[in-house]
Amino acid sequence: MTDTNQRIVLASRPVGEPTAANFRVETVAKPVPADGQVLLRNIYLSLDPYMRGRMSDAKSYADPIAVNDVMVGGTVCQVEMSNHPDYAVGEWVLTYQGGWQQYAVTDGQDLVKLGKEPTLPSYALGVLGMPGFTAYVGLLDFGEPKPGETVVVAAATGPVGATVGQIAKIKGCRAVGIAGGAEKCRHAVEVLGFDACIDHKAPDFAEQLAAACADGIDVYFENVGGKVFDTVLPLLNAHARIPLCGLVSQYNATELPAGPDRSGMLMVQLLVKRIKVQGFIIFDGNQHRYPAFAKDMQQWLSEGKIQYREQLEQGLETAPQHLIDLLNGKNFGKVVVQVNQPL
Amino acid sequence: MTDTNQRIVLASRPVGEPTAANFRVETVAKPVPADGQVLLRNIYLSLDPYMRGRMSDAKSYADPIAVNDVMVGGTVCQVEMSNHPDYAVGEWVLTYQGGWQQYAVTDGQDLVKLGKEPTLPSYALGVLGMPGFTAYVGLLDFGEPKPGETVVVAAATGPVGATVGQIAKIKGCRAVGIAGGAEKCRHAVEVLGFDACIDHKAPDFAEQLAAACADGIDVYFENVGGKVFDTVLPLLNAHARIPLCGLVSQYNATELPAGPDRSGMLMVQLLVKRIKVQGFIIFDGNQHRYPAFAKDMQQWLSEGKIQYREQLEQGLETAPQHLIDLLNGKNFGKVVVQVNQPL
Repeated sequence: MTDTNQRIVLASRPVGEPTAANFRVETVAKPVPADGQVLLRNIYLSLDPYMRGRMSDAKSYADPIAVNDVMVGGTVCQVEMSNHPDYAVGEWVLTYQGGWQQYAVTDGQDLVKLGKEPTLPSYALGVLGMPGFTAYVGLLDFGEPKPGETVVVAAATGPVGATVGQIAKIKGCRAVGIAGGAEKCRHAVEVLGFDACIDHKAPDFAEQLAAACADGIDVYFENVGGKVFDTVLPLLNAHARIPLCGLVSQYNATELPAGPDRSGMLMVQLLVKRIKVQGFIIFDGNQHRYPAFAKDMQQWLSEGKIQYREQLEQGLETAPQHLIDLLNGKNFGKVVVQVNQPL
Repeated sequence: MTDTNQRIVLASRPVGEPTAANFRVETVAKPVPADGQVLLRNIYLSLDPYMRGRMSDAKSYADPIAVNDVMVGGTVCQVEMSNHPDYAVGEWVLTYQGGWQQYAVTDGQDLVKLGKEPTLPSYALGVLGMPGFTAYVGLLDFGEPKPGETVVVAAATGPVGATVGQIAKIKGCRAVGIAGGAEKCRHAVEVLGFDACIDHKAPDFAEQLAAACADGIDVYFENVGGKVFDTVLPLLNAHARIPLCGLVSQYNATELPAGPDRSGMLMVQLLVKRIKVQGFIIFDGNQHRYPAFAKDMQQWLSEGKIQYREQLEQGLETAPQHLIDLLNGKNFGKVVVQVNQPL
């Protein structure tokens, strides 16, 4: 057993795209749990687009990470030492307090139990966790899809987009994905079961998307923004719904794009087409839907109705580059970094 | 009895702000009702911001008025001749097929009966009609106001805005209006019962609005857009709702404003604050709410809980200038043009 704790802290705030220099790898003493605490051995660290926002000090829905603080993130862990009666050594748990490090101590209030021997513990960071729940609530509660309608989602092979498309199919909709590159598009259609998936890097992206959405778009699940949204907007039908959970294309922006100012025209389009836009953050106000999500998703997974692709990377020190790549759409599936071997 | 029919047709499509040259007053033969038809004597013509959109041929939710066709509009009429068993001479009706003219014929399918001797027939064009129904559905169904929340509405002395603010008060909310000029603001507070009303022409408009909304804004009922929306946006609370039924500041625009392009930043604000924007057109999809509206509004009026101000103008030929003025916020209350004396 080691007595050190490798961790990654925010070295400086990024200006535009994060670089390796914004992160610092440190080795500190492994923490010792006090009475009533447990020592968490982080096994899997989730990487997600929202982390870019937390690296900035712009006002947002969550406090920024302080410079020199450990990067935040969801982790699936095992209890390595326990001074807490509710947690036994070896038990698996999920936490959002563990962060980008090998070990953490906690009084247990942040922990979600995953059992003694979960079959696929890292799924709690993806299809059975925050991204899957985001897809479920966003599509079903805010997108209100009806059978026969066309649902479009970008980042279609990412953990949110892939789940949105597959739930849309389960609900009897036509699912059209948008992704970067032929390989991802093929995966979306052949493995995930999308009706079509269009490569946003193709020169005729707009024409291809229009052709794939011959009846227009009824639900656009928004997680990227930018050029993709501009292409989707003219295809939206009257009474379309736009659940809005992310705008990854905007996260690295350092200034507003050149004009003209299209914000007024955007509102005119929402009015004329009677569109609903609903911004949401999954952790805020949706907790009452978790039991239904967990039940449905477990069932769909067991029936083979939901496929899930994970990009498993090794070693905490690789996390900064994988987050940088994720923000550029270079991931393929849910990015998880293994930071320790299981006990 | 005259045998002529004065009417106003669309002479040409406006570029930017409409001018008198876009309208033409014509005198034609008074129509004669065929078997099964009635002759309508238009008494009151409603003027409304949506008419500007119908004068353009830009794609919208409704077909444009053809050049040389009679301008569209809601009218309260009396039946002057009847070849239809369901309609008696002298009876009052409401129609959206009558248009900007003194007389029209119809087979009756478009008519809503208002009774033999309604006390305030023109109210069917305002607080008891389309504007009142817009305020009711927009605020209650899409704004979802909760007691103690702050509701903001612009054009606060117009027929929609005045009704929104008064319903907000009935529902236990703080109502803050925005209007142009001290006289309208005073009316909103003293007669309509708004908690505050801010003059958007004041040099310190933004500071005054922020001071009047010390707890932020929970519902912004959007009917103007432009500078007012820009001022409201930073004051919106998390989980704010924006019913969007009009953007009168945009209707005369001929080109997009200069940059930078703030459309992406607008979406970021909707996401970060978890805001809902719901575009709606009252005639599309809200009919099931009409009975509740009619019952509630009649009761509120009879109890004196809703005050209603009408700007009654005389003579069909004045309608073009009154519409031009309305689009510039120069009206004070609901604009109705009397085009005939009652029978």
